[in-house]
This record gives sequence, structure tokens and C-alpha cells, in this order.
Amino acid sequence: MHPFDQALSLEALSPGVYRGHSSAAYWSMVGPFGGATAATLLKAVLSHPDCLGEPVSLTVNYAGALGEGAFEVRLDVARTNRSTQHWTAAIWQCEADGQWRINTTATVLTAVRRETWSQSDVPVPEVPRPADCEPQPLFDQVEWIKRYETRLITGGKPSVWDGRLSSSLMQLWMRDAQPRAVDHLTLTALSDVFYPRIWLRRALRVPAGTVSMTVYFHADAATMAATGEGYVLGQAKAQEFHNGFFDQTAQLWNEAGQILTTSHQIVYYKE
Amino acid sequence: MHPFDQALSLEALSPGVYRGHSSAAYWSMVGPFGGATAATLLKAVLSHPDCLGEPVSLTVNYAGALGEGAFEVRLDVARTNRSTQHWTAAIWQCEADGQWRINTTATVLTAVRRETWSQSDVPVPEVPRPADCEPQPLFDQVEWIKRYETRLITGGKPSVWDGRLSSSLMQLWMRDAQPRAVDHLTLTALSDVFYPRIWLRRALRVPAGTVSMTVYFHADAATMAATGEGYVLGQAKAQEFHNGFFDQTAQLWNEAGQILTTSHQIVYYKE
Repeated sequence: MHPFDQALSLEALSPGVYRGHSSAAYWSMVGPFGGATAATLLKAVLSHPDCLGEPVSLTVNYAGALGEGAFEVRLDVARTNRSTQHWTAAIWQCEADGQWRINTTATVLTAVRRETWSQSDVPVPEVPRPADCEPQPLFDQVEWIKRYETRLITGGKPSVWDGRLSSSLMQLWMRDAQPRAVDHLTLTALSDVFYPRIWLRRALRVPAGTVSMTVYFHADAATMAATGEGYVLGQAKAQEFHNGFFDQTAQLWNEAGQILTTSHQIVYYKE
Repeated sequence: MHPFDQALSLEALSPGVYRGHSSAAYWSMVGPFGGATAATLLKAVLSHPDCLGEPVSLTVNYAGALGEGAFEVRLDVARTNRSTQHWTAAIWQCEADGQWRINTTATVLTAVRRETWSQSDVPVPEVPRPADCEPQPLFDQVEWIKRYETRLITGGKPSVWDGRLSSSLMQLWMRDAQPRAVDHLTLTALSDVFYPRIWLRRALRVPAGTVSMTVYFHADAATMAATGEGYVLGQAKAQEFHNGFFDQTAQLWNEAGQILTTSHQIVYYKE
């Protein structure tokens, strides 16, 4: 089984309640990689027998640290319409004091999509091909980074932490280190691959962590099939850093230049 | 009482449960203006005696039409940390068949913010001053538009619906028609002022409606005070239109060029 699928394994306990285990293979600094946690929540919704259509939008709020061991994903359908469905979800975990608490909340919109007039209004960045970019890890300190092959184009972590201001723009090619066809779960995780923009903008490594991420899914089944096990181009940039929180906008494209997702984050940072 | 405050009036029924009434003054085509609904949800959270700090992030999912008459906002604290707090919220309404159902869900992150290193990484658009732009309504068909004074800079609704492709970029100056000092509630509503980007991009007026909106708040009390009753510069642009849904990214600045919010939407459209 692919490590990503293993990390996202869920056991159905009752309708809308799933048990999972936080993954050592996707461990970050104080918990699992947030992208894998987001993908786990989406997977729970997509696994639900009542799920209508495919994902359109996902918002995940990282309220507290997801710890080691077992957790529960609990889902509710807020409303089902003819072609759209709104879900609310939360991850509950039994904490050290024996109390069950929520550490992550999410809302998910799924829809039955039909072919309509479609058009992009964001340019595909002109970048070198994956083969022309050197494979290099984004960071070497954390386990989850080893699960991805990343080829930096621009905006790698500063080589000197000298506080010199630069653009927060980052572009890279990436894919699962162990090949796996791209699906909505991959795209969710890849939307959270970018290291904190403040480290780049400020050239200073301050404590930082995503508190909320929203992913909009544009890729349909045909685009997903065309993407396959290929590389995904990721681009991320901050807009505003203000009093402890900054935001990030990001886009993912496949090698053919088709947009896969657009996403947004608000990230906590400490002086 | 200002019409916006009237529209957002809430009566506390029990801890975390508020009764409101959908507003005729902010009526749109099939329900109240989505920006006012989003502001109502935020107001409920900010009114709660347990609320910690000020809003950082708000995501609203428009699951079903909010109808005329009374509704209830029901809140839960998902988690309270030392300086951040995560809320989940929903609007419930008794529908024609006598059943109570959810028509809107939301998650809100509030935080006690401290002064830290702050920096923008998005340029303030170079635009004419409000006095140099003609006041003109965005649209004249719906009631809520009359609650705002809008001065278009670029990207007004097409004068001819000829299907000619153009950029979805829109910029405008705006403020409450009846003066009111800008606060987080105003900013929430103004983040949803932009008419559907597909009407502009495609020059075709197709049915469209926001299904999810996320607002990140960057303005602190000092910025808010500096904004006062002045104009707010809004900029919105779509990124991708695909099979029935497009996304929009937007920013709001005050006249002094300080960023107030960045926001994102995913919007349903019909062929």
C-alpha cells in the first residue's frame, strides 16, 4: 500500500464516524503534515456512502495539535441539494487528560459537475521543465518531506538567515516520491507543501503554522487522468503579513498547464 | 439605527443561540445579500461573551437559500487556545414544510493579536482617487446595492452582452451610502460586493451564486480607525472557470493604501 494511502486509512465505526491513526511517515514537527490531515478529512467525506459528486471546496481549520495515535473523524451533512452537498467535519482525539477534544474542523462542498463553458484567467507561469530543475528537498528536518520529490524553480529557503527582505514567491515541481496517480487527496496535500512564506520574505526562521486552509478543486476526472503520476507545478505567494498572521495564495497546475487547484491559507507566525 | 446594524440585529435566546431576521434593505435576488449574511454570522461570534480577541479568518458556506423572516444562528466553540479560538456556526431556519434546516454554515477563527513585524507583499493598485471616479451603481436591479455608494475604476458590468472574452479584473471605490465607520462586519460585507466575475469575463449574464467565501482580516484597530467612514478600494479577479464553478480572489484597502482584508470565493455558474 502506498504510504499516502496508509496514512489516510480510515475504519468506519458508525455512519459518519471514522477511526484513523496519525502517520509517522507524514510526521512534521509537532504533529502530522497538515496537508495529510486535510486530505484525511476529505477522504472521510468522499468515503461516506451518502456523498454526492466530487469535491469543489474544502476548508480546514487547524485548531489544536493532532497528536500521535488514534483519532476519530466525525461528519455531518449540513445540507444536500439537487447537485451540491455541504459537509461539516471535525477530528476528535482523546488527549493526555482522558478528555476527547476537537483539534481540527472542516467544511467540504461536493457537487455533481457537468461540462460547461470553461476558461482560465490566470497565466500558467513560464518555467523550466521538471527535467531541467534539480531535485532537492524543501527542508531536511522533517519526515513528511521525504514522501515527495521536489524540484525547486524559485523561492527556496534562504541559504543565509540575514533578515534581508525578498519576494515571498515560490515555484516548484513536485510529485509523490513513490509514484501514485494524482487525485483530489494528493492535490489537497500538495496545496500545503509550501514552507511558511515568512521564512522566505523575511529571511528569518520564526515559529509559524497554518491555522486555516481553503482548497478549491478545478480538476475534473479527465484532467486528473492526464496528470497521472506526473509532476505538479506549485506556486505560492503571500499577500500580507500583519501582527502575527499572514496569508498565502497558491495554485497547482499539471505538466500540460491545466490548473488543478487554487488554494489559500492564513498562517500564524511569532516574532 | 444604521440599516446595516439593523440588518445584523440579533437577539440572544440562550448561550450560543441568536435570533435574527433576514433584511429587506439588503435583499438580493432570492435571499439577502450574501455579504450581510456572512457579517451576521461573524457578528454572532463577536457578540458571544466567551469570544477571545478579534476575527482573523471567516469561511461561510451558502448551502441553501436563506428565506424571509426569522432565523437562528447557532454557535459552538470548537477549541479555545491561549491566544486563538475556533468557532463553528450555522444558520437554521424553519422552512415552508415546518422543518428546521441549515442553510448556511461557517467557521471563524478569532485571536488576540500582538504587534509584530508586519509587511505587505501585494502592491496597492495605482488607481485614481475616489473623487475622480463617477459614482455609479454596480447594478440597479437589487435592493442591497442601494446601501452602498460605489465608484467604478475598471471592470464594470458589460454594456453589451456579446460573449466577448475580457479580463475578469474589477476595481472600485466603495463605502456605506449612509456613513458608518468601517469595522470587521463592514469588511466582511464589502468582500462580497463584486458581481459574478463570469458576467464580466464572458460578457454573458448566466445564473451564478457564491457557494463558499473565506475572508482573512488584516486590519487592526488602528487601521480601522484610520479608515473610518472613508472609501474602501476593492479589487477582485477570477482565476479559473471550470465546469460550473469559478473562484475569485479579492483584496480591500483603505484610502491610505493599508490592506484591510484578502478574500476568496468559489461561485456556482450555469451554462
